[in-house]
Amino acid sequence: MSLQAKADWIAVDWGTTNLRVWALDSSGCEMIHRSSDKGMGGLAANEFEPALLELVADLLAPEIKTPVIVCGMAGSRQGWAEAPYKTTPCTPPSLEDATVVHAADSRLDVRILPGIKQRDPTDVMRGEETQISGFLADNPGYSGTLCLPGTHTKWVAVRDGVVEHFRTFMTGEMFALLSSRSVLRHSLSAREIDHDTFEQAVADAAENPQEIAASLFGIRAAGLIAGLTGEAARGRLSGYLIGAELAAVRDGFDLAAITLLGSDQISKAYHSALGRLGYRATLLNAETITLNGLVLAYSSYSKVSS
Amino acid sequence: MSLQAKADWIAVDWGTTNLRVWALDSSGCEMIHRSSDKGMGGLAANEFEPALLELVADLLAPEIKTPVIVCGMAGSRQGWAEAPYKTTPCTPPSLEDATVVHAADSRLDVRILPGIKQRDPTDVMRGEETQISGFLADNPGYSGTLCLPGTHTKWVAVRDGVVEHFRTFMTGEMFALLSSRSVLRHSLSAREIDHDTFEQAVADAAENPQEIAASLFGIRAAGLIAGLTGEAARGRLSGYLIGAELAAVRDGFDLAAITLLGSDQISKAYHSALGRLGYRATLLNAETITLNGLVLAYSSYSKVSS
Repeated sequence: MSLQAKADWIAVDWGTTNLRVWALDSSGCEMIHRSSDKGMGGLAANEFEPALLELVADLLAPEIKTPVIVCGMAGSRQGWAEAPYKTTPCTPPSLEDATVVHAADSRLDVRILPGIKQRDPTDVMRGEETQISGFLADNPGYSGTLCLPGTHTKWVAVRDGVVEHFRTFMTGEMFALLSSRSVLRHSLSAREIDHDTFEQAVADAAENPQEIAASLFGIRAAGLIAGLTGEAARGRLSGYLIGAELAAVRDGFDLAAITLLGSDQISKAYHSALGRLGYRATLLNAETITLNGLVLAYSSYSKVSS
Repeated sequence: MSLQAKADWIAVDWGTTNLRVWALDSSGCEMIHRSSDKGMGGLAANEFEPALLELVADLLAPEIKTPVIVCGMAGSRQGWAEAPYKTTPCTPPSLEDATVVHAADSRLDVRILPGIKQRDPTDVMRGEETQISGFLADNPGYSGTLCLPGTHTKWVAVRDGVVEHFRTFMTGEMFALLSSRSVLRHSLSAREIDHDTFEQAVADAAENPQEIAASLFGIRAAGLIAGLTGEAARGRLSGYLIGAELAAVRDGFDLAAITLLGSDQISKAYHSALGRLGYRATLLNAETITLNGLVLAYSSYSKVSS
């Protein structure tokens, strides 16, 4: 018999590349946090339950159903079970909107929160809606722009706590591909970034975003014939991509009130890029924000399960 | 003793991924064409001569030096021997500008043609200058815009046979990376392209090039929630990238007189994209154009070797 304390419920953030779980008591206090690399991208539909049990089996009390609240890509069509999107304008999904998954292990009561879709321009999110929900738990009735930097950065227009519209930018993925797999990798030898070059590139791209398609190869050329350093090359690539993104969000988003959800390097880059263009943004540590959103969802569990 | 006829001279197009050689007689008639995958990208400096000899040793007459005229990346700093760039504005390099390589095999007289560089905005070409030279051999004194579509598409402003300025776009490489390695690969399952979608995307991106950073993820979203087909997704990605490129070239290039050097699928895509925006371009089969340029360079061999 295991001495491991049992979880009152389990929160799960199941992304494309990672699986993160938290065991919580009924008041939402975190007992245990675990993760694995069994992201949705590498799993067939019947492999989700075993991947989850690997991390949580010892936390499940026998003979009762433990609630498991899931957000993220596990709810996509290629995931564990499809959780159909809510459609903008809408509040972030709550447990009432969740898809109930039939698990083989009778100790599991699994509910997957849906993402949000937008019809025009077409866009989708899965996982970020729970971060937004976690943010709104602390900032009820918020009106303003949220920016969630990442591989696929989301810009979200929120009014009175309602997600009005949003837009996704592949800036992070483009940076990763161009810096590691394109001809530019030869010029970006350094790991460090030259900050002044970064800010100048942000300003250049924001002013002439249509130039970016040509400016990118110019990074390679400047490395070859003008002595551009690896640090400056990295700054220029990152600055061009983020600057072009900021040029595109100026149209549809209120940049007078921006909250950046994130604390990592990329969030700080967005923060200084916005600053260079004269926009003030509040940088908010997002480490626990997904968990906050899952805790909020769980708060109505007794209502939906009764 | 080999019965193989010997070459009067050898033309070499040595790119990053491929090595192509032609054995010619003194009048420039092609006797033999061979190629290998020993591109510059995979070779150390001392591996170039053996890679060349693999393809041409049996074509070399004994006891005399056979001229070998090379263009392309073999002349880069990481290549066989550096052939320093000419600088715009300039005519395409001729054999007088070539770097003489000291070969261990006494039957070889190797000369590498330089590329062209531009100081502001910084840009470089290696190989394309010989295509331009081949085009100008048939069109002396040409004035207008040349477009050389490819992994790194070059736009070149030519006036009276002089390369005035040029610009390189990573459009081809971006398409390859985004279609095969980004999240968009899931949406671009098809190999075929929807032509109407392509043209519409060209027009959209040319009108709002700053939107492209957001439009790209929209392809994925439309595949998920709006039934966008793989063919249409491929057309949209290609159209956005080429449309944004055309928006950028409108500023610095005369689009009233465009010659497209190329006959492959990508050149045809540029041709219809230009047409959709109301620009007429002449599509010129470029298969033999590099060889034409090398033949032109060889025509002054007796002058430089005497």
